Amino acid sequence: MKRYADWMQQLVEALSRLPGIGKRSAERIVFYLLKSKKDEVLELSSLIRSVKENVFFCEICHNFADSKICYICSDPARDHGLICVVEDPKDVISIEKTGSFVGIYHVLLGALSALEGVGPEDIRIHDLVQRIKKDRVREVILATNPNTEGETTALYLSKLLRPLKVKVSRIARGIPVGSHIEYTDQATLSRALEDRLPV
Amino acid sequence: MKRYADWMQQLVEALSRLPGIGKRSAERIVFYLLKSKKDEVLELSSLIRSVKENVFFCEICHNFADSKICYICSDPARDHGLICVVEDPKDVISIEKTGSFVGIYHVLLGALSALEGVGPEDIRIHDLVQRIKKDRVREVILATNPNTEGETTALYLSKLLRPLKVKVSRIARGIPVGSHIEYTDQATLSRALEDRLPV
Repeated sequence: MKRYADWMQQLVEALSRLPGIGKRSAERIVFYLLKSKKDEVLELSSLIRSVKENVFFCEICHNFADSKICYICSDPARDHGLICVVEDPKDVISIEKTGSFVGIYHVLLGALSALEGVGPEDIRIHDLVQRIKKDRVREVILATNPNTEGETTALYLSKLLRPLKVKVSRIARGIPVGSHIEYTDQATLSRALEDRLPV
Repeated sequence: MKRYADWMQQLVEALSRLPGIGKRSAERIVFYLLKSKKDEVLELSSLIRSVKENVFFCEICHNFADSKICYICSDPARDHGLICVVEDPKDVISIEKTGSFVGIYHVLLGALSALEGVGPEDIRIHDLVQRIKKDRVREVILATNPNTEGETTALYLSKLLRPLKVKVSRIARGIPVGSHIEYTDQATLSRALEDRLPV
């Protein structure tokens, strides 16, 4: 005896492949879709299709974009002399959410990793150097993750960019705002002490 | 400054309308879609569209179906003399998952509710009576929810069906399998004592 009709089986399986969605949530979503307005459901369907058909990488920064140049790189109000280097498009969103960065981005689409065999040629490092040489870039902020791969990538980039006479900085590592010293891990606490600033 | 590109904004909004999906999970899903194989994403898009375009109610039992008659009603291997009456298509799935019901269903698409003004004409009661009169139905199991509306509906149906000379039963209410008497609510425990069975 089968649990679902075939059409339901297929949609539940497709939905439960998405991150954070199990069989149970997929079922709830199917019933929600069945009871929703047709327009709304067709819109969702076409937005999903469109994302795959129209969204590629920005030719300048390699963030996701639905045109050749992403909305950030094509915004004249932003500071094009300030580039924030991140590993992944997700990081762009996190930084944009702070609302406190006015420059533009460069997405490496990865990080150097000896373990996983990712070298400088495998991520968008060459393009970054070209951008800095070509455009009038004043400062590069290295916002790769504060883990082994991210630190390695930041170190590699800082050495690589030194001859280009551009200011290179690294985002601060320290105890997160709102956290407790008591519960902070030792590596973070050591770094916070080391990078202390005058008040 | 906007957090997302427009295309991302739209898809995040559409996804976070689904039950159990917040902004954060919607973002994760968008990135998952961007990184997935095109075929897989287009399949999901077309399954969502198809559910809205092709799935309606079964003409016999009012369960969801992608043809005039649902896969349960059209299965000759099932016992068509045994009808299980439920409130919602979701309940059909729950009962199907037990694998222990061999009959067919009747989905009322609601329950009687004085508070919400749902009367016998508003749910599929008339159709049930017609089915019982027309087909050779031996037994009707009332599997409406064990709450006020469900009990009211079951009581109403049991009176309505009495003249039809069909066996009418109600699913057992009692303490759930695997639970503890200590933590069982009083209404359930009272019912379990009242409906005790000889061993």
